[in-house]
Amino acid sequence: MKIYLAEWLVTQNDARDVFSPGALAVEGGSVVEAGPAPDVLARHPGAETEDLGACVILPGLVDAHAHVAMSAFRGLGDDKPLAAWLQEDIFPREAKWTPQGIRDAARASFEELLSTGTTSFYDMYMLEENVFAAADEVGIRGVLGENVTRFFPQLGGATEEALFDRIRRNAAAWRGHPLLRGAVTPHAVYTTEPRLLKRARALADELGWSFGMHMSETRGETRDCLAEHGLRPIPYCDSLGILGPDTTLFHCVDVDDADLEILLRRGCAVVHNPASNLKLASGVAPVVKMVRKGVRVALGTDGPASNNAQNMVRETWLAALLGKGSSGAPDAMTAQTALDLATRGGAAALHDPRIGSLAPGFHADFFALSLDFPNMRPVHDIVSNVVYAASGAENVLTVVAGRPVWRRAGARTTVRRGI
Amino acid sequence: MKIYLAEWLVTQNDARDVFSPGALAVEGGSVVEAGPAPDVLARHPGAETEDLGACVILPGLVDAHAHVAMSAFRGLGDDKPLAAWLQEDIFPREAKWTPQGIRDAARASFEELLSTGTTSFYDMYMLEENVFAAADEVGIRGVLGENVTRFFPQLGGATEEALFDRIRRNAAAWRGHPLLRGAVTPHAVYTTEPRLLKRARALADELGWSFGMHMSETRGETRDCLAEHGLRPIPYCDSLGILGPDTTLFHCVDVDDADLEILLRRGCAVVHNPASNLKLASGVAPVVKMVRKGVRVALGTDGPASNNAQNMVRETWLAALLGKGSSGAPDAMTAQTALDLATRGGAAALHDPRIGSLAPGFHADFFALSLDFPNMRPVHDIVSNVVYAASGAENVLTVVAGRPVWRRAGARTTVRRGI
Repeated sequence: MKIYLAEWLVTQNDARDVFSPGALAVEGGSVVEAGPAPDVLARHPGAETEDLGACVILPGLVDAHAHVAMSAFRGLGDDKPLAAWLQEDIFPREAKWTPQGIRDAARASFEELLSTGTTSFYDMYMLEENVFAAADEVGIRGVLGENVTRFFPQLGGATEEALFDRIRRNAAAWRGHPLLRGAVTPHAVYTTEPRLLKRARALADELGWSFGMHMSETRGETRDCLAEHGLRPIPYCDSLGILGPDTTLFHCVDVDDADLEILLRRGCAVVHNPASNLKLASGVAPVVKMVRKGVRVALGTDGPASNNAQNMVRETWLAALLGKGSSGAPDAMTAQTALDLATRGGAAALHDPRIGSLAPGFHADFFALSLDFPNMRPVHDIVSNVVYAASGAENVLTVVAGRPVWRRAGARTTVRRGI
Repeated sequence: MKIYLAEWLVTQNDARDVFSPGALAVEGGSVVEAGPAPDVLARHPGAETEDLGACVILPGLVDAHAHVAMSAFRGLGDDKPLAAWLQEDIFPREAKWTPQGIRDAARASFEELLSTGTTSFYDMYMLEENVFAAADEVGIRGVLGENVTRFFPQLGGATEEALFDRIRRNAAAWRGHPLLRGAVTPHAVYTTEPRLLKRARALADELGWSFGMHMSETRGETRDCLAEHGLRPIPYCDSLGILGPDTTLFHCVDVDDADLEILLRRGCAVVHNPASNLKLASGVAPVVKMVRKGVRVALGTDGPASNNAQNMVRETWLAALLGKGSSGAPDAMTAQTALDLATRGGAAALHDPRIGSLAPGFHADFFALSLDFPNMRPVHDIVSNVVYAASGAENVLTVVAGRPVWRRAGARTTVRRGI
């Protein structure tokens, strides 16, 4: 057992307990206890401790929508309309990917994610075996899906059969991994067809994997789906029988009340990507309404080519501000709700009930923001400082499954060996 | 003379020149030359150099609307409606200010501003002599105004005469300061009256100071001004003859086309505060339209009690995203335009033509973001990385008037003495 101590501990448990000073006892990759430091220490007098000092410990943030290999394209053709960006900047480069290139770009993204407090991610891309390999190397937790499309050429085998073979190979290769799981992830309604969507759903059921896809990202997507299928994207997918409680839908910007009713009935999770949706001028997902209705909502960065960072602290702040701004009420989305989306909402989107909170039995996935920065003092409300004032760069330590996977160079902590 | 070298130099000059590797030659507090490193070095063979290595040098950002002493109230009562927040959280504490308390809180804010690349600020608050003193101590550049109101009790003298006496005393005490200038700053239309606004304008003219005030921040302000004066806030102020090219108006969220015509005709500068306006659910100022019409627009953080950080890198990113999102076009506000607002726009708002660019004769006010962070690579477009990917925490050095006033602890640079 090891006990981490800090000035503050934000548990994100069901009661949203906050302890100061706080202690987090960890054993075998899981949380054993989270509570006031004196109480936890008194119950485990001989345990090893690491005192992080003037820090706040939080459950690791969950980046529930990412395309991590696209860090290679950061800053390429921003400010262009979508079609020009894809045709002139992205597609020509994606045609030249090498497996090692994807692996290196994913590694760079994991460093960014871990350094800013993200411990879990949900990825969609191509040649996903390379993302699995990179994630395994760094020790981050994740759900990984290969894009299923009818349009995009897939490197190393341009046929549908080759694509499904790759997904099955990845399933066999990574089955039972302690941190990584697969998902079957059709790209979107506009890059698939009914037969392909049903085949993808059947494969998810066969493999026991969850199911995810881009959904209702723009008004244009809705318009085209209505023209082609006579239904908006969510009713169209529901008519195919592919939506369920294992389903995660990325974006959901252009959704109406009937769409939300389907999401509630099927138990789907939604991932809100506020920065990407603003940057591409897609709009603002009606997250306040979703949360009020009881839809499970998580936050994601989307790919680093359309964000252009993978910093969930920044994303959480933006989600809070947009929730207020878009609904015209300063209390429409509180700091606590925004932090819930980035943690507990992420558990829903990754279909992993053991992430998003620091409570007994949960995975020991956490990070620690230093309060030794001018923007982090005074502490009138620690959750407010985390959501509204932090940049993510205050992080000093990131732990996944009890294992420290990232530390700020030069950060000082006080370690006492167990007796 | 000293020459700063870096992998990139973003000048923000009229041509928006970017040099890689770049060199910035500084002497006597001013820029002597900004250009490609080999050329600048060849012209000054014996000069002292400091090589910042893998960094991008930029003109210092301008926080054109701040209430720096309010860092003491960071995180107090966020997510509350405005009236409850003021009555329950802010006013009771403001009644207890001490001069030293204001000075200490301002110092903390200056550390935050300087550490994230801001070299100039425009402040409005009470007992402003303490903000002058703190700014003088740290060596930041600024424009400082005492709130002029008919409502708020002013500590140390609750009468209008005592308030105007204090402004005159500050003018006498800080006249000729190399970095600090005063402004006359009525709080807002709803906390003043015509006589007081005209008196404030006359004092600005008498002192040769510029003039600034909160303006059109909310629809409620417009509604009340129409009810009381029969005019929207901007036409009302224009009818009093108080607007001119020396005037800076903070917020301007609820403005119509006729308002913008007045701003153009009078040559007023506008300060956009995207985070504060979202957080208080006031809305989004029509900045894209203002820029297209030719209104001079700057960016500001507003006070740290309604932001809750004072990080102009974050603010610039948010301004870019909101410009796109609110206008429905991904190219409506480019990274370059957003950076222009934070630098060149700031020069307009502070009425200081020698800040906001790094060109010969300009003040040597700059900062340097390290590229040794995963979010800062690759560099396909350096301005994109600064605006969309940086957090501000990458900063390693901030220089005001040629004097290094903030350095990241442990940052390594290579200094060669002049010969």
